[in-house]
Amino acid sequence: MPPTRITEDAFRRVLREGMPSGAAMAFDVLTLEHGRAVLRMRAGAADIRPGGTVAGPVLFALADLAVYAAVMSAVGEVPLAVTTDATIHFLRRPRATTLVARARLLKEGQRLVVGEVTIEHEGEDGAPVAHAVMTYSVPPAR
Amino acid sequence: MPPTRITEDAFRRVLREGMPSGAAMAFDVLTLEHGRAVLRMRAGAADIRPGGTVAGPVLFALADLAVYAAVMSAVGEVPLAVTTDATIHFLRRPRATTLVARARLLKEGQRLVVGEVTIEHEGEDGAPVAHAVMTYSVPPAR
Amino acid sequence: MPPTRITEDAFRRVLREGMPSGAAMAFDVLTLEHGRAVLRMRAGAADIRPGGTVAGPVLFALADLAVYAAVMSAVGEVPLAVTTDATIHFLRRPRATTLVARARLLKEGQRLVVGEVTIEHEGEDGAPVAHAVMTYSVPPAR
Amino acid sequence: MPPTRITEDAFRRVLREGMPSGAAMAFDVLTLEHGRAVLRMRAGAADIRPGGTVAGPVLFALADLAVYAAVMSAVGEVPLAVTTDATIHFLRRPRATTLVARARLLKEGQRLVVGEVTIEHEGEDGAPVAHAVMTYSVPPAR
Repeated sequence: MPPTRITEDAFRRVLREGMPSGAAMAFDVLTLEHGRAVLRMRAGAADIRPGGTVAGPVLFALADLAVYAAVMSAVGEVPLAVTTDATIHFLRRPRATTLVARARLLKEGQRLVVGEVTIEHEGEDGAPVAHAVMTYSVPPAR
Repeated sequence: MPPTRITEDAFRRVLREGMPSGAAMAFDVLTLEHGRAVLRMRAGAADIRPGGTVAGPVLFALADLAVYAAVMSAVGEVPLAVTTDATIHFLRRPRATTLVARARLLKEGQRLVVGEVTIEHEGEDGAPVAHAVMTYSVPPAR
Repeated sequence: MPPTRITEDAFRRVLREGMPSGAAMAFDVLTLEHGRAVLRMRAGAADIRPGGTVAGPVLFALADLAVYAAVMSAVGEVPLAVTTDATIHFLRRPRATTLVARARLLKEGQRLVVGEVTIEHEGEDGAPVAHAVMTYSVPPAR
Repeated sequence: MPPTRITEDAFRRVLREGMPSGAAMAFDVLTLEHGRAVLRMRAGAADIRPGGTVAGPVLFALADLAVYAAVMSAVGEVPLAVTTDATIHFLRRPRATTLVARARLLKEGQRLVVGEVTIEHEGEDGAPVAHAVMTYSVPPAR
């Protein structure tokens, strides 16, 4: 199996230095392997909509973070990697509980890296609340 | 021209009551007409990434807000309308300045409303930093 | 496990009656279970681009067909189900060989059914040439 | 205004040599300017579904063709440009009549070119039957 090219510590440092909004999210890293990342997040008070659901942009931010981790697990520290396109489907009304995002890469190209991510309530596999596909553009000089 | 079915005051109230994260964004409403909404937002400190750019999830949240306003301008107050799918393309590195989001509806169906939105730096028409297409599902009982 | 609500014969009949362009594609049905469909297709002469690759719209048509089969395997014969949105990522240059499309549903709603599909060269699991997510709108009266 | 970098004749030649399925579509080129292309197509018998509507993959192929023309109008003949992602929304049931696809570029990058396209019935502006956003990856050596 190809090596995991980033540690959790390095990932958190990249966020602190380059994406404060990501660093501010209260997440645990459950898995970090080459091309795969699993993050767990408890929705905070600011994320919750009346009725006890989680706002769409919060799910988007979590999905983006998980794919970003998967990208760096495969290509290493590339703080300047940027999302070029993202498609998210909101599938079920998320409850304001703990969410798990599982990301894996579909393509690991020289310039473009594509990943998909599924977000579920913790402990409820198979009934995703959101699914996203995202492309990251990786700078050539690395 | 068909009527504008929501006022800015009512839109802000729907946000306060149903989407606190949207209400917390510092935006002005420049236009609110049937099927069209233009919002202006100055990026806040928390939204900015080192290098003076704006985080992708912040652009997503702004795009979502502008389409939500356009949806309600056409179908009226539907606090329970939810985004079902969203595709965003990040086109240029956004600067941490004032952004303008222009949303318009592509389809105004009974159940599904589709809108597109372009985000630009204020005063720089024609060079969008992001473009999104979003579908809102509207509850049948309205 | 919930029942498979369509047979291969019925699926092919729905295509012949309602989607001649789908019926004209030379495909085998490898799997048809509740919410899952696997189709195999050999690219025809008209589908191939110089250099021996397969045109994007052909992959789109195959992806659409596989998700349509998965939709009907779950909700039964709904000839009037229509695609409302589709996002496809072209991941690798497809060779003009036999392609396998694996579709599964992410959401089985009353009105909206969302599926994802991966297309690979036959015998080459794990290196998809395309990935798509598609939403079908299902008529209420069924 | 920047120059139009391809003629209709050259565009048709690129299709004949590199995308026979595109060359086989019966389309007229109404406009071809730097970053903009308008194509008109009459749906053929094979494209039509019972009830007199047009199959989704046919709309996808038309959208792809129009964006491809817009890409080459801006960057010149790049037969090896490939679509990397495409999102299409089907907005209204298309009638089996003449369709007009209007494509324009949103971003003209060194490596990635993004365009959007709207498909309407001829003579019915403002009520699109489909809308798509597509990214083309352009080879570096050109």
